[in-house]
Amino acid sequence: MKMFNNVVIIGTGLIGGSLGLSLKKRRLSGTIYGLSLHQRNAKLAKKIGAIDKAVKDLEVVRSADLVILATPVDSIIDIAAKIKDKLKKGCIVIDVGSTKEKIVCRLDPLISNFVGCHPLAGSEKKGIVNLGGDIFTGSTCIITPSALTNKKALNKIKAFWVKLGAQVEVISPKKHDQALACTSHLAHAVAFALMNSIPENFLNFSLSSLKEVTRISASDPGLWSQIFLSNRNNLLSAISSFQNKIAALGLALKNNDKKFLIKILKSANKKRERLG
Amino acid sequence: MKMFNNVVIIGTGLIGGSLGLSLKKRRLSGTIYGLSLHQRNAKLAKKIGAIDKAVKDLEVVRSADLVILATPVDSIIDIAAKIKDKLKKGCIVIDVGSTKEKIVCRLDPLISNFVGCHPLAGSEKKGIVNLGGDIFTGSTCIITPSALTNKKALNKIKAFWVKLGAQVEVISPKKHDQALACTSHLAHAVAFALMNSIPENFLNFSLSSLKEVTRISASDPGLWSQIFLSNRNNLLSAISSFQNKIAALGLALKNNDKKFLIKILKSANKKRERLG
Repeated sequence: MKMFNNVVIIGTGLIGGSLGLSLKKRRLSGTIYGLSLHQRNAKLAKKIGAIDKAVKDLEVVRSADLVILATPVDSIIDIAAKIKDKLKKGCIVIDVGSTKEKIVCRLDPLISNFVGCHPLAGSEKKGIVNLGGDIFTGSTCIITPSALTNKKALNKIKAFWVKLGAQVEVISPKKHDQALACTSHLAHAVAFALMNSIPENFLNFSLSSLKEVTRISASDPGLWSQIFLSNRNNLLSAISSFQNKIAALGLALKNNDKKFLIKILKSANKKRERLG
Repeated sequence: MKMFNNVVIIGTGLIGGSLGLSLKKRRLSGTIYGLSLHQRNAKLAKKIGAIDKAVKDLEVVRSADLVILATPVDSIIDIAAKIKDKLKKGCIVIDVGSTKEKIVCRLDPLISNFVGCHPLAGSEKKGIVNLGGDIFTGSTCIITPSALTNKKALNKIKAFWVKLGAQVEVISPKKHDQALACTSHLAHAVAFALMNSIPENFLNFSLSSLKEVTRISASDPGLWSQIFLSNRNNLLSAISSFQNKIAALGLALKNNDKKFLIKILKSANKKRERLG
């Protein structure tokens, strides 16, 4: 059943494009318009059926019932400022950025029906060439309302993600950024640093475990430097907490303290079990 | 074609058991005898066809043409010392331990046809219940001879691994331990520390990336504390080099230095590409 008539997706990359495909597959929308900084991406999105029309001009939002901001995090606030006075009454705007506090704090007072979202779906591959229509099925989408968030818009967006197959978690933007600093941004920072620390001449002696641990270090530097900087303080404290843990392991090793080493490893085992 | 008549596998876990299955599948051996500290494991190995006979007594090595030491690293040297005077002339002994310098240094003078090996196959799962007959196909096996290694035995063991489907790399035990400290042991240490650093209450907000990066933190604490301690100095220096890299990333973040951050991330991208 159609939830929105005109939908405008700004940023037709991996997440934006996948949203278009999912909406069409489930017949949740009328016409989907797509904009991209790189016109080629929007045309490609049209070609594979993720959007109905590739457009160049932000004026298209005037007819929108739902606007999805799916650009890299640095551009979301700027684009929202450009479209805020063009939106018709009742139009809902969501973003799908990887950090939320700064974005929600700036956009909530700017757009009356804004709802911050972060679908925990994606991969180290960016861009429309890697998109799929079903990346949200079985995934979790975090929705981060503030005191200013319109309740009706919030409920509609909750239903929207559920219809896309996602399980919805509602938490504050602040808690989102603290949590994701640990569960996503730190993991990426560690993978980048680990990859950088391995001497070139040893790369031939790699096991599947190393490939797996470092796979996400193939993630896009432009996107991830933005994500890191937009969650700077939380990530710095996550890095610091991680540094304490690796230092503790190093110290146990230096002291030949097998008992403590086993205790450290067992504690990681136990926590890892909870991840499934 | 049969390469060895009587084969004795000491330690019928993931690697030992898989070797038994692979040898039988490719008809490379006569009778395979299996010993395990836990009699139940050897019986299970017999049940699934990884060995022909489960035995309790090390005396069985008297008739062996090939002895495979596949116990955790800490026991390899002790067991070798116990069997050295029982071996018949021409019997080849190999180990499959994850670290090599200490083992090769001790066993080379002890056993005339000893060849140190490290098949880069396995997983975070230990034990015979997870073994498979084809884990060596397409894998790399590192062979670590010293000046004392018998050339004929070395060549036969090279051929043995090739027949099991592995690609053979021959390097010194010292270089092996330096390389694996970086490409395997450090990756495990980092995964254990990363898992330990994530607050319990944030575990619900995990992405597939975190699950992937930390999968090996489910590895066995007993086995891995032995591996870490048996390669202590190399691992300490690998940890130290990694600590410099994560500190550099943290500093770029602290300084809001986007340009340097991108440079760090790009360098990891480039190296990761080489891993395939």
